[in-house]
Amino acid sequence: MDNFFGDINAEGKLVLSKDEIAHCMRVMRKQVGDKIGVLNGKGCLWEAEVELNTNKTGEVKMLAETHATPTLNYKFHLAVAPTKSADRIEWLLEKAIETGIHRLTLIYTQRTERKHTNVERLEKIAVAAAKQSGQLLLPEINESKFLDFIQSCKAQAKFIAACPDLDGIQPLSALKVQKEICILVGPEGDFTPEEYQNAIQAGFQPISLGKQRFRTETAALMAVMAKFAYDN
Amino acid sequence: MDNFFGDINAEGKLVLSKDEIAHCMRVMRKQVGDKIGVLNGKGCLWEAEVELNTNKTGEVKMLAETHATPTLNYKFHLAVAPTKSADRIEWLLEKAIETGIHRLTLIYTQRTERKHTNVERLEKIAVAAAKQSGQLLLPEINESKFLDFIQSCKAQAKFIAACPDLDGIQPLSALKVQKEICILVGPEGDFTPEEYQNAIQAGFQPISLGKQRFRTETAALMAVMAKFAYDN
Repeated sequence: MDNFFGDINAEGKLVLSKDEIAHCMRVMRKQVGDKIGVLNGKGCLWEAEVELNTNKTGEVKMLAETHATPTLNYKFHLAVAPTKSADRIEWLLEKAIETGIHRLTLIYTQRTERKHTNVERLEKIAVAAAKQSGQLLLPEINESKFLDFIQSCKAQAKFIAACPDLDGIQPLSALKVQKEICILVGPEGDFTPEEYQNAIQAGFQPISLGKQRFRTETAALMAVMAKFAYDN
Repeated sequence: MDNFFGDINAEGKLVLSKDEIAHCMRVMRKQVGDKIGVLNGKGCLWEAEVELNTNKTGEVKMLAETHATPTLNYKFHLAVAPTKSADRIEWLLEKAIETGIHRLTLIYTQRTERKHTNVERLEKIAVAAAKQSGQLLLPEINESKFLDFIQSCKAQAKFIAACPDLDGIQPLSALKVQKEICILVGPEGDFTPEEYQNAIQAGFQPISLGKQRFRTETAALMAVMAKFAYDN
């Protein structure tokens, strides 16, 4: 069954989101009576049926709610410096969504070469990846300056990915027991010593992702997948 | 320091491999006296110095052996059906190498759409990824038909990635204690029921990578990264 994004509107009707109406009716050529899945990106998946008016109003007939809860029993907020090449971040996003994350923040650090990210494009990639993988969670995506971010982050357990030779560093397995994680992953040239200091003062704990030298997007995905593995 | 592939030859001299001489001398423009790293892909990394004859013979002056052991204390053999789009397998290889694997086998199953993989190209990508990440292990890469593969695989612990609803399936954490793992990951359309049966008869244990619906390359990387996470 093909999945499309939508949600229940104020009148209690299940409605496809605007972009999805065209995708469902014109690209995928669904007909009246066809069964589709509708995801709201917040943990709900409905079985639904295309109706006479679906191509105009987006309304579909709700048949059953097949899942009502997210499949992860922890919250994961990934905060990563965008890579120079945009496709590496897009790839990371696709894989992180297949695995499951709740929020992605692109952070701009002193050594981040990219000054802006096309968040709208990332949101489209996120929707496509979530639909393709039947993922019930669609992460929020936003951007932030490093200093603003570390001061406003409210996660229970806050980590900053760091070289294994930094003092007092925790192993990757520190992610294991945590129920609400935010992890910061630096750019190609790493965080500056000053940024490490600021993050630690703001309550972020240095964590080692292993002795390997990972690319930014690999390090970020390692954190996402390691947490998933510890919980499965 | 830039890394290049090479090894100790029969006369006990440290020599860059053929392709790497040009890369070191012409692309990277190293000069006599420049310090470089030399990796042999089998766990050794030397510090070395470019000599007068390096551009002709590939010989370099060995200064120190800085690492002599692989950084993983387990063996990981990934056997995966090649994806329709070649770049997804290339991406997987890059990330698997950053994390560390010992062998990659491209397996051709009944539902594998791709009939051939450019192994030479993959080997070049492997070398580039290993150099970039300072990875001391370069995996062997080969191809095999599914049935030949399951009959000849000699790993201590053999797994086949499967839907979580198959009988007697083990969780992802079954990878935890194993010291020598081979894991089979199927193509976009999954293994056939017959292939599952054959693999189980050949001693492969069904393992679930989680309730998520992963793409082939994501599933494969999940196995690689989960094992890494359990051991760190």
